[in-house]
Amino acid sequence: MAPLAPRTGDAVFANVERVNAELFTLTYGAIVRQLLTDLEEVEEVNKQLDQMGYNIGVRLIDEFLAKSNVSRCIDFRETADVIAKVGFKMFLGVTASVTNWDPEGTSCSLVLEDNPLVDFVELPDTCQGLYYCNILSGVIRGALEMVSMKTEVTWVRDMLHGDDACELRVKLLKQVPEEYPYKDDD
Amino acid sequence: MAPLAPRTGDAVFANVERVNAELFTLTYGAIVRQLLTDLEEVEEVNKQLDQMGYNIGVRLIDEFLAKSNVSRCIDFRETADVIAKVGFKMFLGVTASVTNWDPEGTSCSLVLEDNPLVDFVELPDTCQGLYYCNILSGVIRGALEMVSMKTEVTWVRDMLHGDDACELRVKLLKQVPEEYPYKDDD
Repeated sequence: MAPLAPRTGDAVFANVERVNAELFTLTYGAIVRQLLTDLEEVEEVNKQLDQMGYNIGVRLIDEFLAKSNVSRCIDFRETADVIAKVGFKMFLGVTASVTNWDPEGTSCSLVLEDNPLVDFVELPDTCQGLYYCNILSGVIRGALEMVSMKTEVTWVRDMLHGDDACELRVKLLKQVPEEYPYKDDD
Repeated sequence: MAPLAPRTGDAVFANVERVNAELFTLTYGAIVRQLLTDLEEVEEVNKQLDQMGYNIGVRLIDEFLAKSNVSRCIDFRETADVIAKVGFKMFLGVTASVTNWDPEGTSCSLVLEDNPLVDFVELPDTCQGLYYCNILSGVIRGALEMVSMKTEVTWVRDMLHGDDACELRVKLLKQVPEEYPYKDDD
């Protein structure tokens, strides 16, 4: 069978099951609030959100590969483009832009001008160290690990801290080409 | 201005911002897992999910009223129909059926054959007392309270406990007609 052409983010998003974004936003807000109550330390909440995201990412990658028809990316530049244009669109309904590449092509920024997770959200003064959307960095890290890329994902800008956009820095630490979590004949 | 006609659930759902259902399902699963870890007692998790849902419901009702063009329902029967056909569709993308009315018209069941929250979920033996989707009962309770209906919402059937559908029993306890949370001129 000839390989299927990769789909655009819009085409994939139009064909997946979806739920109301406001319900998602409020549900996510409920998690963060719960963690703040239970864990008390903002730093612990950041860690926990990242871990939750990681666990989600290692599962979401399957849906991503199944629905997007994206095959193995040539390099990390292509990977970053696919995350920004297809991945974000497919899951959150928005696209990111990819900027600020380092000369080696192993580190770049994903910039979200619109982020449904932070709609209606304001951080109280006691939460200034909180990376409210830290689940996103975990999702990216977890999903990429399943396709053999160890990454480090950190926040550079955050609309909840007064910036004009959300900027995530993604740094490729290590690439292990042969450890695929799925079989070729699946 | 002439009042707008109420929209069908399909029409409303087509016009709201949405996110991927699998992302929502996995994110919700992460909450439940977190609560199980933090609270240990299944009964406490049920309570906490219900409370989270309540807090979400008191906010979601605004989006519901704004987007659905639904005006005040004549009676509780109409309210239940609107929740089942417009509310569930608008937020979760599925509709419920309304059955098992009591003779007084104050108590009925909402039956969901398809529930995106429980996709891929299996409960371990240690969680047999868990109402995994208890956030839903909280959302209904919270939303109805904002339109002056005090209700009690309980689970009758649950797919995660081996039933063929999810059935929520909604009982109207008290109706206070004049306490609207929004102004008529909004």
